[in-house]
Amino acid sequence: MTSAVHHIATDVLLPWPDLDRRHGPWPEGVGVHVWDGVTPGSEPAEDVLARIGLWVMPYAVPDAVRLLPRLPNLRAVQSLSAGVEKLLPQLPAGVALHNGRGLHDASTAEHALGLILAAQRDLPQWVADQAAGRWEPHFTRSLADCRVTIVGYGSIGAALEQRLLACEAHVVRVARRARPEQDVHAVAELPKLLPHTDIVVLVLPENPGTVGLFGAEELAALPDGALVVNVGRGRTLDTDALLDEPSAGRLRAALDVPDPEPLPADHPLRHAPGVLLTPHVAGGSAAFRPRAERLIVEQVRRFAAGRPLLHPFPRA
Amino acid sequence: MTSAVHHIATDVLLPWPDLDRRHGPWPEGVGVHVWDGVTPGSEPAEDVLARIGLWVMPYAVPDAVRLLPRLPNLRAVQSLSAGVEKLLPQLPAGVALHNGRGLHDASTAEHALGLILAAQRDLPQWVADQAAGRWEPHFTRSLADCRVTIVGYGSIGAALEQRLLACEAHVVRVARRARPEQDVHAVAELPKLLPHTDIVVLVLPENPGTVGLFGAEELAALPDGALVVNVGRGRTLDTDALLDEPSAGRLRAALDVPDPEPLPADHPLRHAPGVLLTPHVAGGSAAFRPRAERLIVEQVRRFAAGRPLLHPFPRA
Ligand SMILES: NC(=O)c1ccc[n+]([C@@H]2O[C@H](COP(=O)([O-])OP(=O)(O)OC[C@H]3O[C@@H](n4cnc5c(N)ncnc54)[C@H](OP(=O)(O)O)[C@@H]3O)[C@@H](O)[C@H]2O)c1
Ligand SMILES: NC(=O)c1ccc[n+]([C@@H]2O[C@H](COP(=O)([O-])OP(=O)(O)OC[C@H]3O[C@@H](n4cnc5c(N)ncnc54)[C@H](OP(=O)(O)O)[C@@H]3O)[C@@H](O)[C@H]2O)c1
Repeated sequence: MTSAVHHIATDVLLPWPDLDRRHGPWPEGVGVHVWDGVTPGSEPAEDVLARIGLWVMPYAVPDAVRLLPRLPNLRAVQSLSAGVEKLLPQLPAGVALHNGRGLHDASTAEHALGLILAAQRDLPQWVADQAAGRWEPHFTRSLADCRVTIVGYGSIGAALEQRLLACEAHVVRVARRARPEQDVHAVAELPKLLPHTDIVVLVLPENPGTVGLFGAEELAALPDGALVVNVGRGRTLDTDALLDEPSAGRLRAALDVPDPEPLPADHPLRHAPGVLLTPHVAGGSAAFRPRAERLIVEQVRRFAAGRPLLHPFPRA
Repeated sequence: MTSAVHHIATDVLLPWPDLDRRHGPWPEGVGVHVWDGVTPGSEPAEDVLARIGLWVMPYAVPDAVRLLPRLPNLRAVQSLSAGVEKLLPQLPAGVALHNGRGLHDASTAEHALGLILAAQRDLPQWVADQAAGRWEPHFTRSLADCRVTIVGYGSIGAALEQRLLACEAHVVRVARRARPEQDVHAVAELPKLLPHTDIVVLVLPENPGTVGLFGAEELAALPDGALVVNVGRGRTLDTDALLDEPSAGRLRAALDVPDPEPLPADHPLRHAPGVLLTPHVAGGSAAFRPRAERLIVEQVRRFAAGRPLLHPFPRA
């Protein structure tokens, strides 16, 4: 091991090749290397790894962290995820973490909207009827005119709001603390907001304050037929409470992130009435790549110029 | 029959009761009667029918036209549908027809958006996986960044555009004739527009110029993997051409209005790969009723005051 020798770590390691072809030339003096995190034996050689100062981790390859011990001069890690709770404790002290805040806004908000529309307009029923040879139209709910409460009005929440307003829905904003000048309510106000909510959308990160945040009491406060959507993290919604009487059947749900995740094949959520599930795919669509590429290019330029990188994630 | 006696037809026949409770009192001098078109034996008596000057037909009850011969002094019919092609030839000469232009904009545009998102984000696959116990996430297409061509940029088309723009898609407007000042292209320009289209949405009425408008040639001009959406009328899209090689499998489709309609239980569209079907439910959601009620109240006020009604439908 030569990792004790301190090279000047001016190089960057990226998950995708050829970004300069689409986004213009790389800045002078920065060496650009590529590792996708999955192709066997494709890790750069040790002398290259020793020059890496900024690593943009391959997206959705949790196992890629195995490279960390081999990056002796690493100064910053860019994750392409917004949720970096699991990555954080694995980083050596002194390595800055930057998250993918904003990269998934369009994709995740779009998927949340898709889940809402699918639930309101009975798409799972039509999918079943198509295959079964049925033609039995009925009136459905709509999204227009609905009162939608966004719990976790952050980056994704704002992108979702824009879509909901275009659909003629009414939006209520909820975050950790109230910001009256922006019409944002505090989570503490949920008990008085939920009885007037047709659709509640959870877009919360997982942290000690959000685990189980939406439980039996919150579910009970929702009116009959209300829709519970979760595109944040599975553990922020109490699955048992959702499956328990009196919530079961009384409420509907559309969940991209379940608890536990992945959802076992025989989990009761899968066959609960009025529950629609997708396997944590909200952030992973074609909308992600061009936005991620634009961020990577900007971060490499900042890194090369010695300017602060965007989206630092607090380490304490 | 006393229908030869001409009463002063100042009364109105509506499909729903109690609109005045939600929308304020009816104008003086107008008699308001209710017939839902379905409850057996609920037709008003002949002397009431003879006083009806404005009839708001029950929505989505085609058989309700049977009342027409019993309305001797009818002056105007308000349909709550936008598409009134089938009703028009059944009306006696001298009876004005008013259509439901605008009433279905929110509902239909919302459903079109739901179909697009379901197709782009693979919702039918996730519905199947949920039931089958699978957890197999994959990257999907998105709506963001897509180039969407709306063929029939009218009332519904504009409502759809507003939703698509909020989803960060790009919209190209197409109508019968070009309106360059509004960036609207003519249908004649489709051959040059379709190769640059990711999603084409048909929102056309049925008329001699639109039947089969989108056929083999238009389908062939679309790039691989493009999505064809139809929320207008089934016969505007050539179903056989869609099912024929080379379109089948190469293109995807999401259709609320098929041809033939209703779609037979064993029709090949039901099992064609990449085809999503709903049974003509785009206009029929909760978004419709409040908008329809507001139009009815406005029309009754205009009728009572002798002012021209909204949305006259040309009779020739
Ligand atoms: N399903 C997917 O594929 C997918 C994709 C991307 C992201 N996500 C998840 O979505 C989460 C949100 O992403 P984002 O980019 O919108 O994050 P963000 O901009 O940081 O917004 C997070 C929101 O959650 C609120 N919040 C945080 N901790 C809270 C607590 N203890 N109690 C109450 N509210 C709390 C914040 O309130 P304040 O503003 O008051 O701090 C803020 O409104 C991510 O953390 C990630 O886990 C999921
Ligand atoms: N699926 C459902 O549940 C549902 C619900 C409601 C309505 N619909 C259908 O949707 C249709 C459209 O509704 P809308 O309210 O948007 O109507 P609209 O405002 O009248 O718009 C119709 C559009 O179609 C174009 N068009 C008409 N004839 C054409 C032709 N021969 N060639 C090319 N373009 C032509 C018009 O072009 P110009 O502007 O140049 O005239 C206009 O852009 C209705 O007629 C109805 O059949 C379906």
